[in-house]
Amino acid sequence: MPRWESDAQGRLKRAALELFETQGFERTSVAQIARTAGLTERSFYRYFPDKREVLFADDGLQAHLVAQVEAADPGLTPIEALLAALGTADEIFRPREFLLRRVRVIAASPALAERDLIKLADIADALARALEHRGVEPGKARFIIDVAIAISRRATSRWLADPEATLSDLVAQTAAELREVVAPPTPTVG
Amino acid sequence: MPRWESDAQGRLKRAALELFETQGFERTSVAQIARTAGLTERSFYRYFPDKREVLFADDGLQAHLVAQVEAADPGLTPIEALLAALGTADEIFRPREFLLRRVRVIAASPALAERDLIKLADIADALARALEHRGVEPGKARFIIDVAIAISRRATSRWLADPEATLSDLVAQTAAELREVVAPPTPTVG
Repeated sequence: MPRWESDAQGRLKRAALELFETQGFERTSVAQIARTAGLTERSFYRYFPDKREVLFADDGLQAHLVAQVEAADPGLTPIEALLAALGTADEIFRPREFLLRRVRVIAASPALAERDLIKLADIADALARALEHRGVEPGKARFIIDVAIAISRRATSRWLADPEATLSDLVAQTAAELREVVAPPTPTVG
Repeated sequence: MPRWESDAQGRLKRAALELFETQGFERTSVAQIARTAGLTERSFYRYFPDKREVLFADDGLQAHLVAQVEAADPGLTPIEALLAALGTADEIFRPREFLLRRVRVIAASPALAERDLIKLADIADALARALEHRGVEPGKARFIIDVAIAISRRATSRWLADPEATLSDLVAQTAAELREVVAPPTPTVG
Protein backbone atom coordinates (compact mmCIF):
# COMPACT_ATOMS: atom_id res chain seq x y z
CA MET A 1 0.00 0.00 0.00
CA PRO A 2 1.59 3.33 -1.00
CA ARG A 3 2.69 5.57 1.82
CA TRP A 4 0.33 8.40 0.90
CA GLU A 5 -2.81 6.29 1.11
CA SER A 6 -4.98 7.33 4.02
CA ASP A 7 -6.10 4.68 6.43
CA ALA A 8 -9.76 5.15 5.48
CA GLN A 9 -8.94 4.67 1.81
CA GLY A 10 -6.95 1.52 2.58
CA ARG A 11 -9.78 0.13 4.71
CA LEU A 12 -12.29 0.73 1.93
CA LYS A 13 -10.03 -1.00 -0.61
CA ARG A 14 -9.49 -4.01 1.60
CA ALA A 15 -13.19 -4.26 2.45
CA ALA A 16 -14.15 -4.01 -1.24
CA LEU A 17 -11.64 -6.66 -2.27
CA GLU A 18 -12.90 -9.03 0.39
CA LEU A 19 -16.55 -8.51 -0.53
CA PHE A 20 -15.85 -8.87 -4.25
CA GLU A 21 -14.04 -12.13 -3.50
CA THR A 22 -16.74 -13.64 -1.32
CA GLN A 23 -19.92 -12.49 -3.03
CA GLY A 24 -18.82 -11.11 -6.40
CA PHE A 25 -18.49 -7.58 -7.75
CA GLU A 26 -22.07 -7.32 -9.04
CA ARG A 27 -23.67 -8.29 -5.74
CA THR A 28 -21.62 -5.91 -3.61
CA SER A 29 -22.99 -2.44 -2.88
CA VAL A 30 -21.13 0.73 -1.93
CA ALA A 31 -23.15 0.74 1.32
CA GLN A 32 -21.80 -2.71 2.20
CA ILE A 33 -18.23 -1.76 1.42
CA ALA A 34 -18.52 1.33 3.61
CA ARG A 35 -20.17 -0.60 6.44
CA THR A 36 -17.52 -3.35 6.33
CA ALA A 37 -14.81 -0.68 6.51
CA GLY A 38 -16.58 0.97 9.47
CA LEU A 39 -17.29 4.12 7.44
CA THR A 40 -20.24 5.89 5.86
CA GLU A 41 -21.23 5.83 2.20
CA ARG A 42 -20.44 9.52 2.15
CA SER A 43 -16.84 8.78 3.15
CA PHE A 44 -16.66 6.21 0.37
CA TYR A 45 -17.55 8.85 -2.21
CA ARG A 46 -14.91 11.16 -0.79
CA TYR A 47 -12.29 8.72 -2.07
CA PHE A 48 -13.85 6.92 -5.03
CA PRO A 49 -16.33 8.06 -7.71
CA ASP A 50 -18.00 4.63 -7.85
CA LYS A 51 -17.76 0.96 -6.89
CA ARG A 52 -15.73 0.06 -9.93
CA GLU A 53 -13.00 2.54 -9.05
CA VAL A 54 -12.14 1.13 -5.62
CA LEU A 55 -9.61 -1.27 -7.07
CA PHE A 56 -8.26 1.34 -9.48
CA ALA A 57 -7.67 4.38 -7.31
CA ASP A 58 -4.33 5.87 -8.18
CA ASP A 59 -1.79 3.51 -6.72
CA GLY A 60 1.13 5.56 -7.98
CA LEU A 61 2.12 2.98 -10.60
CA GLN A 62 1.86 5.30 -13.58
CA ALA A 63 3.81 8.12 -11.93
CA HIS A 64 6.42 5.63 -10.74
CA LEU A 65 6.94 4.13 -14.22
CA VAL A 66 7.09 7.51 -15.93
CA ALA A 67 9.63 8.77 -13.39
CA GLN A 68 11.74 5.64 -13.90
CA VAL A 69 11.72 6.04 -17.69
CA GLU A 70 12.54 9.74 -17.42
CA ALA A 71 15.42 9.04 -15.06
CA ALA A 72 16.79 6.12 -17.11
CA ASP A 73 20.41 6.19 -18.29
CA PRO A 74 20.41 7.99 -21.67
CA GLY A 75 22.64 5.18 -22.97
CA LEU A 76 19.82 2.64 -22.68
CA THR A 77 17.75 1.86 -25.76
CA PRO A 78 14.06 2.78 -25.43
CA ILE A 79 13.00 -0.80 -24.74
CA GLU A 80 15.80 -1.27 -22.21
CA ALA A 81 14.66 1.86 -20.38
CA LEU A 82 11.05 0.65 -20.37
CA LEU A 83 11.86 -2.87 -19.26
CA ALA A 84 14.10 -1.59 -16.47
CA ALA A 85 11.20 0.60 -15.30
CA LEU A 86 8.62 -2.20 -15.55
CA GLY A 87 10.96 -4.51 -13.63
CA THR A 88 10.66 -2.18 -10.62
CA ALA A 89 6.84 -2.23 -10.54
CA ASP A 90 7.01 -4.62 -7.58
CA GLU A 91 7.94 -1.57 -5.49
CA ILE A 92 4.31 -0.50 -6.04
CA PHE A 93 2.70 -3.96 -6.09
CA ARG A 94 2.87 -4.38 -2.34
CA PRO A 95 1.78 -6.40 -0.58
CA ARG A 96 2.18 -9.02 -3.32
CA GLU A 97 -0.70 -11.05 -1.87
CA PHE A 98 -3.05 -8.08 -2.32
CA LEU A 99 -2.13 -7.88 -6.02
CA LEU A 100 -2.71 -11.60 -6.46
CA ARG A 101 -6.19 -11.34 -4.96
CA ARG A 102 -6.90 -8.20 -7.00
CA VAL A 103 -5.89 -9.92 -10.26
CA ARG A 104 -8.29 -12.80 -9.54
CA VAL A 105 -11.19 -10.51 -8.64
CA ILE A 106 -10.65 -8.44 -11.80
CA ALA A 107 -10.49 -11.54 -14.00
CA ALA A 108 -13.83 -12.71 -12.56
CA SER A 109 -15.77 -9.54 -13.45
CA PRO A 110 -16.15 -8.21 -17.01
CA ALA A 111 -16.84 -4.70 -15.64
CA LEU A 112 -13.58 -4.72 -13.69
CA ALA A 113 -11.66 -6.31 -16.56
CA GLU A 114 -12.80 -3.47 -18.84
CA ARG A 115 -11.71 -0.88 -16.32
CA ASP A 116 -8.34 -2.61 -16.05
CA LEU A 117 -7.84 -2.48 -19.82
CA ILE A 118 -8.60 1.24 -19.83
CA LYS A 119 -6.21 1.88 -16.97
CA LEU A 120 -3.46 -0.01 -18.78
CA ALA A 121 -4.12 2.08 -21.88
CA ASP A 122 -3.73 5.26 -19.80
CA ILE A 123 -0.39 4.01 -18.48
CA ALA A 124 0.68 3.17 -22.03
CA ASP A 125 -0.19 6.72 -23.15
CA ALA A 126 1.84 8.22 -20.32
CA LEU A 127 4.83 5.99 -21.12
CA ALA A 128 4.55 6.89 -24.82
CA ARG A 129 4.94 10.56 -23.89
CA ALA A 130 7.95 9.68 -21.72
CA LEU A 131 9.62 7.87 -24.63
CA GLU A 132 8.84 10.78 -26.94
CA HIS A 133 10.69 13.02 -24.47
CA ARG A 134 13.66 10.72 -25.05
CA GLY A 135 13.41 11.51 -28.77
CA VAL A 136 11.52 8.44 -29.97
CA GLU A 137 9.14 9.05 -32.89
CA PRO A 138 5.49 8.70 -31.66
CA GLY A 139 4.49 5.67 -33.77
CA LYS A 140 7.63 3.83 -32.77
CA ALA A 141 7.20 4.81 -29.12
CA ARG A 142 3.69 3.32 -29.10
CA PHE A 143 4.99 0.12 -30.70
CA ILE A 144 7.84 -0.30 -28.23
CA ILE A 145 5.42 0.28 -25.36
CA ASP A 146 2.93 -2.29 -26.64
CA VAL A 147 5.78 -4.80 -26.82
CA ALA A 148 7.15 -3.89 -23.38
CA ILE A 149 3.67 -4.20 -21.87
CA ALA A 150 3.28 -7.65 -23.43
CA ILE A 151 6.57 -8.64 -21.76
CA SER A 152 5.53 -7.08 -18.48
CA ARG A 153 2.14 -8.83 -18.40
CA ARG A 154 3.75 -12.22 -18.86
CA ALA A 155 6.53 -11.48 -16.36
CA THR A 156 4.03 -10.22 -13.77
CA SER A 157 1.85 -13.30 -14.04
CA ARG A 158 4.97 -15.48 -13.60
CA TRP A 159 6.00 -13.37 -10.62
CA LEU A 160 2.59 -13.83 -9.01
CA ALA A 161 2.91 -17.60 -9.48
CA ASP A 162 6.47 -17.81 -8.17
CA PRO A 163 7.21 -16.11 -4.85
CA GLU A 164 10.93 -16.89 -5.16
CA ALA A 165 11.63 -14.97 -8.35
CA THR A 166 12.23 -11.23 -8.65
CA LEU A 167 10.12 -9.28 -11.11
CA SER A 168 13.16 -7.74 -12.78
CA ASP A 169 14.71 -11.19 -13.45
CA LEU A 170 11.42 -12.40 -14.90
CA VAL A 171 11.19 -9.31 -17.14
CA ALA A 172 14.69 -10.07 -18.46
CA GLN A 173 13.83 -13.75 -19.00
CA THR A 174 10.62 -12.85 -20.80
CA ALA A 175 12.50 -10.42 -23.07
CA ALA A 176 14.84 -13.30 -23.95
CA GLU A 177 11.81 -15.50 -24.63
CA LEU A 178 10.47 -12.82 -26.99
CA ARG A 179 13.73 -12.90 -28.96
CA GLU A 180 13.24 -16.64 -29.45
CA VAL A 181 9.57 -16.25 -30.35
CA VAL A 182 10.34 -13.75 -33.12
CA ALA A 183 13.62 -15.29 -34.29
CA PRO A 184 13.64 -15.68 -38.06
CA PRO A 185 12.77 -19.27 -39.00
CA THR A 186 15.86 -21.41 -39.44
CA PRO A 187 15.69 -22.88 -42.95
CA THR A 188 15.39 -26.67 -42.79
CA VAL A 189 18.24 -28.44 -44.55
CA GLY A 190 16.60 -30.66 -47.22
CA MET B 1 -18.35 -3.67 -46.24
CA PRO B 2 -18.75 -7.41 -45.66
CA ARG B 3 -20.97 -9.24 -48.12
CA TRP B 4 -23.47 -10.32 -45.47
CA GLU B 5 -24.20 -6.81 -44.19
CA SER B 6 -27.75 -5.76 -44.95
CA ASP B 7 -28.24 -2.52 -46.76
CA ALA B 8 -30.09 -0.96 -43.78
CA GLN B 9 -27.21 -1.87 -41.46
CA GLY B 10 -24.69 -0.41 -43.89
CA ARG B 11 -26.70 2.80 -44.25
CA LEU B 12 -26.90 3.20 -40.47
CA LYS B 13 -23.15 2.67 -40.12
CA ARG B 14 -22.33 5.19 -42.82
CA ALA B 15 -24.80 7.72 -41.40
CA ALA B 16 -23.36 7.29 -37.89
CA LEU B 17 -19.79 7.68 -39.08
CA GLU B 18 -20.65 10.84 -40.97
CA LEU B 19 -22.52 12.38 -38.01
CA PHE B 20 -19.76 11.42 -35.54
CA GLU B 21 -17.25 13.09 -37.88
CA THR B 22 -19.15 16.30 -38.36
CA GLN B 23 -20.66 16.90 -34.92
CA GLY B 24 -18.92 14.43 -32.63
CA PHE B 25 -20.03 11.18 -31.00
CA GLU B 26 -21.50 12.80 -27.88
CA ARG B 27 -23.72 15.20 -29.76
CA THR B 28 -25.16 12.60 -32.11
CA SER B 29 -28.41 10.84 -31.17
CA VAL B 30 -29.75 7.49 -32.33
CA ALA B 31 -32.76 9.37 -33.73
CA GLN B 32 -30.47 11.49 -35.90
CA ILE B 33 -28.55 8.49 -37.17
CA ALA B 34 -31.77 6.71 -38.08
CA ARG B 35 -33.20 9.81 -39.77
CA THR B 36 -30.02 10.39 -41.78
CA ALA B 37 -30.14 6.77 -42.92
CA GLY B 38 -33.81 7.17 -43.91
CA LEU B 39 -34.90 4.67 -41.24
CA THR B 40 -36.73 4.64 -37.91
CA GLU B 41 -35.18 4.47 -34.46
CA ARG B 42 -36.84 1.11 -34.11
CA SER B 43 -34.93 -0.19 -37.14
CA PHE B 44 -31.73 1.10 -35.58
CA TYR B 45 -32.30 -1.00 -32.47
CA ARG B 46 -32.95 -4.05 -34.63
CA TYR B 47 -29.29 -3.93 -35.64
CA PHE B 48 -27.44 -2.26 -32.77
CA PRO B 49 -28.00 -2.29 -28.99
CA ASP B 50 -26.84 1.33 -28.64
CA LYS B 51 -25.12 4.26 -30.30
CA ARG B 52 -21.66 3.11 -29.27
CA GLU B 53 -22.05 -0.23 -31.02
CA VAL B 54 -22.72 1.13 -34.50
CA LEU B 55 -19.04 1.20 -35.36
CA PHE B 56 -18.40 -2.16 -33.67
CA ALA B 57 -21.11 -4.40 -35.10
CA ASP B 58 -19.57 -7.70 -36.02
CA ASP B 59 -17.56 -7.05 -39.14
CA GLY B 60 -16.37 -10.64 -39.38
CA LEU B 61 -12.79 -9.76 -38.42
CA GLN B 62 -12.58 -12.07 -35.40
CA ALA B 63 -14.07 -15.06 -37.24
CA HIS B 64 -11.79 -14.38 -40.21
CA LEU B 65 -8.63 -14.26 -38.09
CA VAL B 66 -9.54 -17.36 -36.08
CA ALA B 67 -10.29 -19.29 -39.29
CA GLN B 68 -6.95 -18.18 -40.75
CA VAL B 69 -5.02 -19.31 -37.66
CA GLU B 70 -6.86 -22.61 -37.57
CA ALA B 71 -6.17 -23.26 -41.25
CA ALA B 72 -2.50 -22.21 -41.03
CA ASP B 73 0.19 -24.65 -42.16
CA PRO B 74 1.08 -26.78 -39.10
CA GLY B 75 4.75 -26.18 -39.97
CA LEU B 76 4.47 -22.46 -39.11
CA THR B 77 5.51 -21.31 -35.64
CA PRO B 78 2.67 -19.79 -33.59
CA ILE B 79 3.77 -16.22 -34.30
CA GLU B 80 4.19 -16.95 -38.00
CA ALA B 81 0.66 -18.35 -38.12
CA LEU B 82 -0.71 -15.28 -36.31
CA LEU B 83 1.18 -12.76 -38.41
CA ALA B 84 0.11 -14.48 -41.62
CA ALA B 85 -3.50 -14.24 -40.40
CA LEU B 86 -3.19 -10.59 -39.32
CA GLY B 87 -1.62 -9.73 -42.67
CA THR B 88 -4.87 -10.72 -44.39
CA ALA B 89 -7.07 -8.44 -42.26
CA ASP B 90 -7.27 -6.03 -45.22
CA GLU B 91 -9.72 -8.51 -46.76
CA ILE B 92 -12.11 -7.33 -44.00
CA PHE B 93 -10.98 -3.70 -43.76
CA ARG B 94 -12.79 -2.64 -46.93
CA PRO B 95 -13.24 -0.03 -48.10
CA ARG B 96 -9.91 1.19 -46.72
CA GLU B 97 -11.20 4.78 -46.66
CA PHE B 98 -14.03 3.74 -44.30
CA LEU B 99 -11.50 2.23 -41.87
CA LEU B 100 -9.39 5.37 -41.97
CA ARG B 101 -12.39 7.55 -41.11
CA ARG B 102 -13.46 5.07 -38.43
CA VAL B 103 -10.02 5.12 -36.79
CA ARG B 104 -10.11 8.93 -36.59
CA VAL B 105 -13.62 9.03 -35.14
CA ILE B 106 -12.72 6.42 -32.51
CA ALA B 107 -9.55 8.26 -31.53
CA ALA B 108 -11.59 11.44 -30.99
CA SER B 109 -14.05 9.89 -28.49
CA PRO B 110 -13.02 8.30 -25.18
CA ALA B 111 -16.25 6.25 -25.12
CA LEU B 112 -15.50 4.79 -28.55
CA ALA B 113 -11.82 4.29 -27.73
CA GLU B 114 -12.83 2.24 -24.68
CA ARG B 115 -15.17 0.11 -26.74
CA ASP B 116 -12.39 -0.43 -29.27
CA LEU B 117 -10.01 -1.66 -26.55
CA ILE B 118 -12.62 -4.12 -25.32
CA LYS B 119 -13.26 -5.41 -28.81
CA LEU B 120 -9.54 -5.90 -29.37
CA ALA B 121 -9.34 -7.84 -26.09
CA ASP B 122 -12.18 -10.10 -27.29
CA ILE B 123 -10.31 -10.79 -30.52
CA ALA B 124 -7.16 -11.53 -28.49
CA ASP B 125 -9.11 -14.04 -26.37
CA ALA B 126 -10.45 -15.80 -29.45
CA LEU B 127 -6.97 -15.96 -31.00
CA ALA B 128 -5.53 -17.31 -27.73
CA ARG B 129 -7.98 -20.20 -27.91
CA ALA B 130 -7.00 -20.81 -31.55
CA LEU B 131 -3.31 -21.01 -30.58
CA GLU B 132 -4.13 -23.32 -27.68
CA HIS B 133 -5.79 -25.62 -30.23
CA ARG B 134 -2.42 -25.69 -31.97
CA GLY B 135 -0.90 -26.95 -28.71
CA VAL B 136 0.51 -23.70 -27.33
CA GLU B 137 0.47 -23.40 -23.52
CA PRO B 138 -2.13 -20.73 -22.47
CA GLY B 139 0.29 -18.23 -20.87
CA LYS B 140 2.60 -18.40 -23.85
CA ALA B 141 -0.33 -18.17 -26.29
CA ARG B 142 -1.45 -14.94 -24.61
CA PHE B 143 2.08 -13.52 -24.77
CA ILE B 144 2.53 -14.34 -28.46
CA ILE B 145 -0.84 -12.76 -29.21
CA ASP B 146 -0.02 -9.57 -27.32
CA VAL B 147 3.18 -9.31 -29.35
CA ALA B 148 1.45 -10.10 -32.65
CA ILE B 149 -1.23 -7.49 -31.91
CA ALA B 150 1.47 -4.89 -31.19
CA ILE B 151 2.97 -5.68 -34.61
CA SER B 152 -0.42 -5.60 -36.28
CA ARG B 153 -1.37 -2.22 -34.76
CA ARG B 154 1.79 -0.61 -36.06
CA ALA B 155 1.51 -2.29 -39.46
CA THR B 156 -2.15 -1.25 -39.79
CA SER B 157 -1.43 2.37 -38.98
CA ARG B 158 1.36 2.36 -41.58
CA TRP B 159 -0.98 0.74 -44.08
CA LEU B 160 -3.58 3.46 -43.48
CA ALA B 161 -0.92 6.11 -44.09
CA ASP B 162 0.49 4.47 -47.24
CA PRO B 163 -1.99 3.42 -49.91
CA GLU B 164 0.77 1.82 -52.00
CA ALA B 165 1.88 -0.80 -49.46
CA THR B 166 0.18 -4.13 -48.78
CA LEU B 167 -0.74 -4.96 -45.20
CA SER B 168 1.05 -8.32 -45.31
CA ASP B 169 4.33 -6.67 -46.41
CA LEU B 170 4.00 -4.10 -43.62
CA VAL B 171 3.36 -6.87 -41.07
CA ALA B 172 6.56 -8.61 -42.20
CA GLN B 173 8.52 -5.33 -42.07
CA THR B 174 7.20 -4.56 -38.60
CA ALA B 175 8.15 -8.04 -37.37
CA ALA B 176 11.68 -7.36 -38.64
CA GLU B 177 11.62 -4.00 -36.83
CA LEU B 178 10.66 -5.82 -33.63
CA ARG B 179 13.68 -8.10 -33.96
CA GLU B 180 15.89 -4.99 -34.11
CA VAL B 181 14.07 -3.34 -31.20
CA VAL B 182 14.65 -6.34 -28.92
CA ALA B 183 18.08 -7.31 -30.22
CA PRO B 184 20.53 -7.77 -27.35
CA PRO B 185 22.66 -4.62 -26.94
CA THR B 186 25.89 -4.83 -28.86
CA PRO B 187 28.74 -4.23 -26.41
CA THR B 188 30.57 -1.01 -27.30
CA VAL B 189 34.22 -1.53 -28.10
CA GLY B 190 36.16 0.67 -25.70
